[in-house]
Amino acid sequence: MNDIYFGKRVLVTGGLGFIGSNVVHRLVEGGAEVGVIDSLVSGHGGNLENLAGVLDQVNVSISDIRDMDQMTHLVKDYDIVFSLAGQVSHSESMRDPLLDLSLNCQGQLTLLEALRRCNRDTKVVYSSTRQVYGRPEDIPVDECHPVNPVDTNGIHKMAAEHYFSHYYEVFGIRSVILRLTNTYGPRMDLENDSKGFLGTFIRKALCGETVCIFGDGSQIRDLNYVDDVVEAMLLAGAIDSVDGKVFNLGHPEPVSLQRIVDILQTLLEFPSKTVPFPVQAKAIDIGDYWGDYSRYRSETNWEPSVSVEEGLYRTVEWYQESDSACVQ
Amino acid sequence: MNDIYFGKRVLVTGGLGFIGSNVVHRLVEGGAEVGVIDSLVSGHGGNLENLAGVLDQVNVSISDIRDMDQMTHLVKDYDIVFSLAGQVSHSESMRDPLLDLSLNCQGQLTLLEALRRCNRDTKVVYSSTRQVYGRPEDIPVDECHPVNPVDTNGIHKMAAEHYFSHYYEVFGIRSVILRLTNTYGPRMDLENDSKGFLGTFIRKALCGETVCIFGDGSQIRDLNYVDDVVEAMLLAGAIDSVDGKVFNLGHPEPVSLQRIVDILQTLLEFPSKTVPFPVQAKAIDIGDYWGDYSRYRSETNWEPSVSVEEGLYRTVEWYQESDSACVQ
Repeated sequence: MNDIYFGKRVLVTGGLGFIGSNVVHRLVEGGAEVGVIDSLVSGHGGNLENLAGVLDQVNVSISDIRDMDQMTHLVKDYDIVFSLAGQVSHSESMRDPLLDLSLNCQGQLTLLEALRRCNRDTKVVYSSTRQVYGRPEDIPVDECHPVNPVDTNGIHKMAAEHYFSHYYEVFGIRSVILRLTNTYGPRMDLENDSKGFLGTFIRKALCGETVCIFGDGSQIRDLNYVDDVVEAMLLAGAIDSVDGKVFNLGHPEPVSLQRIVDILQTLLEFPSKTVPFPVQAKAIDIGDYWGDYSRYRSETNWEPSVSVEEGLYRTVEWYQESDSACVQ
Repeated sequence: MNDIYFGKRVLVTGGLGFIGSNVVHRLVEGGAEVGVIDSLVSGHGGNLENLAGVLDQVNVSISDIRDMDQMTHLVKDYDIVFSLAGQVSHSESMRDPLLDLSLNCQGQLTLLEALRRCNRDTKVVYSSTRQVYGRPEDIPVDECHPVNPVDTNGIHKMAAEHYFSHYYEVFGIRSVILRLTNTYGPRMDLENDSKGFLGTFIRKALCGETVCIFGDGSQIRDLNYVDDVVEAMLLAGAIDSVDGKVFNLGHPEPVSLQRIVDILQTLLEFPSKTVPFPVQAKAIDIGDYWGDYSRYRSETNWEPSVSVEEGLYRTVEWYQESDSACVQ
């Protein structure tokens, strides 16, 4: 896979964030010529340390994808764009919906407008989210499931998906949309509790603090280890037949929240308990979720290679070996 | 119907525009206490002359619904809000998609945030558009038809619909969404060709200029005379059972573009011809459209009362009697 990117000019927006920086590491390994745009918006996970070890091989611009002048300059000459910049927090999107609108809609629309003006021959891989489905009518959820987001973040990611489809149809700017599910692994932001339960669980487990599970612990999620997501994204950028389409990612073995805590407790010593859902969290909770990724597997042969046990083991090990988290 | 609004405090955003000003006239007749917010954004149809005759009975604020400070002040104390401010032009949304984002998404989200902070007991009637459906899979189109907009304007109106549903679900701010189809009548903006074919047809017909029909003239549309749309909106604001729902408007007698021109030619003397679709217009054209409004009829007994012949007659007569358009 990496060979395909050798010598290619690749732009990663949000390349200092969690998934973005993992994409950058893989691209650099594969011999790509990598540019990064990241605005380092406070609290959104961007961190220059995420590129430790490859920083001198990457062209980093601390710029904002919402700025058209910067973008028309910066997007030129790239063969492929991985569009990862944005806000991912559901709860933050409720606290400040206008900021979410700006980061997720204005940002993607500005990127596309800049490409329309200056670089129509590129291809974009857009990282969307399972959150666009809202509360599943049944699981596993495939791409034919109705789109009905329950929070502002989901609404804006849904709108951005339409931008990509629209610019493909009308202006011929190739793109592919991947709907990611919960992703975890090295370089994830463990400090910000608004970015999903998994980072909070892992941080508290590492620190020996009590992990609080909202609800009774039976809620189902499918988790992807970040290396599998990076592989899926690189495939998306490299395979022409996916252009103009939308795909779920997912994992063959969904797990309950309690099971995640149980696995972490085989690796680390910490207490846990179940607590009632906070009202605000319940209002935008989607219940059980498990994505059907067979469409993407059929198209690309992608298959997650890391079990949740293995992935959590690797993640814990990485944080224990780094200085990036609280380690007892 | 008007009795229901007697003494009610009603806010109309975009109240200096085409449909908004017609709503205001009806509300003033019915004894409502009416406030108007309109930013008079150039080219968007807002015009103080649209309130000629009632201006001294209306509290007009030349303000921008995108401005949170202004809005938190202005939305207080209203019982009902008719949310009509926004951009309606499909072609303009392609020329400047970021402006469309700002006017249609930032505007509605700011309105809702202001209501959440200062006036949760109000009810909003949001004027959406049939454009959210994109190219109909079959006609007539009912509310179960997939939402798949073909232009940026449709994407943003779709997102705004979700805001209203979301703020109803999570914060209890009541609202109803009406998907309008082509609306025409007194006070429509005839000067701006980007706002749909119908204004252009009527202006050129009034001026004796050649009306150019894109395509072969067989394309189907359903037209609503503005008084019928105003009636539908007033019902939406007054009936509790519609809260949280989405409805099509429409007309029982869809017509072809050629038929519209033929009717106008019974009223006015002007030449017409068919011309091939311009490339840019074709890219976002939706083909035939005819909306099924039976859900709304069932819920409210609303039924369009004006035939297209009668409506075009009244419209032409109004412009001939006013100084608002080129009249030979």
